[in-house]
Amino acid sequence: MGKGGLMTKAAKAKRVTKNPAKRNAAEKNSPTPRQTRPSAVKAELKHIPWSSIELEDLNPLLQRQFVVGQDVMLARVLLKKGCIVPEHSHHNEQITYILEGALKFWIDGKELVVNAGEVLTIPPHMPHKAEALEDTVDLDVFNPPRADWINKTDKYLRGGK
Amino acid sequence: MGKGGLMTKAAKAKRVTKNPAKRNAAEKNSPTPRQTRPSAVKAELKHIPWSSIELEDLNPLLQRQFVVGQDVMLARVLLKKGCIVPEHSHHNEQITYILEGALKFWIDGKELVVNAGEVLTIPPHMPHKAEALEDTVDLDVFNPPRADWINKTDKYLRGGK
Repeated sequence: MGKGGLMTKAAKAKRVTKNPAKRNAAEKNSPTPRQTRPSAVKAELKHIPWSSIELEDLNPLLQRQFVVGQDVMLARVLLKKGCIVPEHSHHNEQITYILEGALKFWIDGKELVVNAGEVLTIPPHMPHKAEALEDTVDLDVFNPPRADWINKTDKYLRGGK
Repeated sequence: MGKGGLMTKAAKAKRVTKNPAKRNAAEKNSPTPRQTRPSAVKAELKHIPWSSIELEDLNPLLQRQFVVGQDVMLARVLLKKGCIVPEHSHHNEQITYILEGALKFWIDGKELVVNAGEVLTIPPHMPHKAEALEDTVDLDVFNPPRADWINKTDKYLRGGK
């Protein structure tokens, strides 16, 4: 799929309400500090198949696609066995649900293996690192949406092994 | 599983940080108006298998379980074919991802069929009704968490067909 936007034409055609340009501009310029972020991104009804959303290749072992709401984001992350997500933290609250495979986390001084069918809630600002123990399909929920993912400034994920 | 709480003993044992009693009390008393809701629920690291969370029987065709974070909730909703979710609305922003099956929505003056592998973003306060066209596994993300689900005051879902 194309690299230009987050959504393909097919996905845009499914968008039920209007004004995507204004919405995307607001997202890109939003600094999204946690409590003070204004609701600059208008909520809208959207019907989107995952198959119509760009699957970004972040590095040879990591692909990602996401749907952005007003104050929440739902991401689908595909990790090949051996993929490392380097330690990082963010102000966004995170809920991770492993649909397939398994991720090992280093978090809060512990090692946790989160298997398919399991959920991990990660508080804001808590540093975490992960490794895919198998080929993995991971769903991530964020509040607010990850501005660094939307703006493609998430350098910690790009180009590594 | 037991009907008493949202989490079984097994799930509670997996809870990594402390003070669940204080957290639950804060949730139950929170009116959760959208912008003004205080962050009374402390974010905590939790590792929870879905299999350890109570699967509530809301009516003969509808079961539900959920994980509550600080400002987001992730729910897994199981609907048998023919299950009707009556029209309702809520201040919570919603993102729905159909994992298996299909739901037909009546929303914003339209009928939309959301199939497995597809996502629907539902703005706050937008009335919607749904019907399961097949046995369906539905993931719902809410911001903020649904106080009526946590407090079991969601009468529109209980006891119907």
